Amino acid sequence: MIYFDNAATGGFKAFSVQETVPTAIKHLCANPTRSSHRLASTGGEFVYKTRALVQKTFSAPSVDRVVFTKNCTEALCTAILGILKKGDHVITTCMEHNSVLRPLEHLKTQKGVEVDYIFPEKAAYFSQKPLITFERVKPLLKKNTRLVITNHASNVNGSMTDVREIGRALKAERPDVIYLVDGAQSGGHLPIDMQDFGIDVLCLACHKALGGIMGLGALLFSDSTEILPLTFGGTGSDSLSLSQPDYYPDRLESGTLNLPAIIGLYEGLMHTASNLDFIPTQLVKMTDALLGYLSKVSGVTVYSVPNPFGIVAFSLNGISSDECAHRLSDEFDIAVRGGLHCAPLMHKYLGTENKGLVRASLSTQNTFREITCFVRAIEQILSN
Amino acid sequence: MIYFDNAATGGFKAFSVQETVPTAIKHLCANPTRSSHRLASTGGEFVYKTRALVQKTFSAPSVDRVVFTKNCTEALCTAILGILKKGDHVITTCMEHNSVLRPLEHLKTQKGVEVDYIFPEKAAYFSQKPLITFERVKPLLKKNTRLVITNHASNVNGSMTDVREIGRALKAERPDVIYLVDGAQSGGHLPIDMQDFGIDVLCLACHKALGGIMGLGALLFSDSTEILPLTFGGTGSDSLSLSQPDYYPDRLESGTLNLPAIIGLYEGLMHTASNLDFIPTQLVKMTDALLGYLSKVSGVTVYSVPNPFGIVAFSLNGISSDECAHRLSDEFDIAVRGGLHCAPLMHKYLGTENKGLVRASLSTQNTFREITCFVRAIEQILSN
Repeated sequence: MIYFDNAATGGFKAFSVQETVPTAIKHLCANPTRSSHRLASTGGEFVYKTRALVQKTFSAPSVDRVVFTKNCTEALCTAILGILKKGDHVITTCMEHNSVLRPLEHLKTQKGVEVDYIFPEKAAYFSQKPLITFERVKPLLKKNTRLVITNHASNVNGSMTDVREIGRALKAERPDVIYLVDGAQSGGHLPIDMQDFGIDVLCLACHKALGGIMGLGALLFSDSTEILPLTFGGTGSDSLSLSQPDYYPDRLESGTLNLPAIIGLYEGLMHTASNLDFIPTQLVKMTDALLGYLSKVSGVTVYSVPNPFGIVAFSLNGISSDECAHRLSDEFDIAVRGGLHCAPLMHKYLGTENKGLVRASLSTQNTFREITCFVRAIEQILSN
Repeated sequence: MIYFDNAATGGFKAFSVQETVPTAIKHLCANPTRSSHRLASTGGEFVYKTRALVQKTFSAPSVDRVVFTKNCTEALCTAILGILKKGDHVITTCMEHNSVLRPLEHLKTQKGVEVDYIFPEKAAYFSQKPLITFERVKPLLKKNTRLVITNHASNVNGSMTDVREIGRALKAERPDVIYLVDGAQSGGHLPIDMQDFGIDVLCLACHKALGGIMGLGALLFSDSTEILPLTFGGTGSDSLSLSQPDYYPDRLESGTLNLPAIIGLYEGLMHTASNLDFIPTQLVKMTDALLGYLSKVSGVTVYSVPNPFGIVAFSLNGISSDECAHRLSDEFDIAVRGGLHCAPLMHKYLGTENKGLVRASLSTQNTFREITCFVRAIEQILSN
């Protein structure tokens, strides 16, 4: 199989991840941070080590404010629903995933939170300049603006937002506004320094470029950001109290943690971090090559520019994206994703909401040979 | 090591679980129910198969209303916070875990939900009859009672509630009231038939007696129970809509599922279900033996009766439960849990909130020889 669906879930897990997670499942079946015996303590140490590694990797302000969730969606929902209050105003963009759009729309209808979406003019897209900049954020800022949310990379086509430019400018202009970055598609692809970039809240999917397994997300936030919990329960702390602890990470981590996935993330991060100088350059080259080939195929329209996230989106004349994805799988054993990728406003912006887009998403484990095979498959689909 | 902490997390995973989860991590890295290629479809089939097996095992009313969560706490919070509305009344018990108590106290203070706790009289405990019965629920029923919550087994001492007696009587008396059972400690130990027992909502921890790995819980509910979501996001369905789908399981499952753990649950359930005739009898015998030995040791007070959940709680004269647990680990390499086990009201009821209890929790993988070693270790701790 040619696996070009790495933006959905990373298709390759490092050998250290493949080895360590099964060892944990076999030999470390103990509830970390609950019981105090040798095995549980060892589990607890792995949790702490991983939290500390995540904190260091992303220059998060403190280890305690690295919270493990079940996926990036839960991290985003915890932040959005746990920060915003009635009467607050939010600025976000057409590039966001439904895991940002749906909680915001919920707050809009249920709590009267105001939401402004940045929809750049159509021409901007073809200029190949960044679509979302502080220049577009600034005029929307209001007295009651509490949160600005942008993704770092569009999961639809890999469009990048310069989160450092926005974060720093926002900190200078309105230090009271919280800047939340959805790093689902960028974490593990590019270095992210929360403090240098002015990011207050960073949400991550651990099973994509970070190299971990499915079942884990992470929520990192600054010392000045307070997040109310969505769930309440056993934390192994203050057990006599019927109230949730008000300190982190306990406040936001109720119930048994996903120890195997946390251990997998540690190994995945160690592997990824050591390659981070190489990954962005390599993926820019690979997307550049794929885009170059595709743009020469008659009947293909590309919707991406070379990017360090490995994402290339395109459409075919007369063939829906879903049909193309099915045929790539059935006839060529190639894995891509068609449809809307849970990002409806981005497709509305691109004018592709009816047929969707084919998204090929590469990792550095893919090869240039696979890219040429893929382009040949597309040519064959168009010719039949 | 002697692992007597199975109520925290199951210490033994069946060979099929140990084999299958790593295979999934290595060869099935694809996002189930999202993309449509071969690998993602295979993942989706595993998810469906597991959902169907859970439905069948617990006679849940429908496959669609088997929802995967990250742990039992999330399942309980989703049900409690997603069912109760302002002005509702809830009846629950002193035996509950903080994952029931804390969301209820949150609703009490934030939404004016009324909560009544059943605290049986002290004498009842020593009668060895069931502590929580419909007779105790009935007088608390009010016009606005919407939910009755009981656990099936206390995680502190293994006290069993006859959920079938309560469920059936409640269905006869007040069919409008929803009956929620916390099956964290009973699922996989005893057969549970939701429809026969009159259970509307069942919450499960998949990494305990069900034989799966950490990182997964399950929420099963009846066709007449509506549960509002706690999180909103990508579901791979209705992607053009900015609202969460209103059908299940999509409504309650946002973001990437924990495929490795779901596959592990399938294998764990297959293993557990095939032993379900044998497990309860075996564990009653083992707890009976351990209780028999311990009750003869001077300085030990036991707080359990023989039970099919493998749980034996006790205290030692002059030694706190935490100290005992530490010494068991350090000096004898025996894993138990001391403290309050996140169930403060049960300790208040038992009068053990100051020193906690030592909880030994067995599985059928433990041996009678380990039990005698354990008792000798307790004797030595008491003698030094």
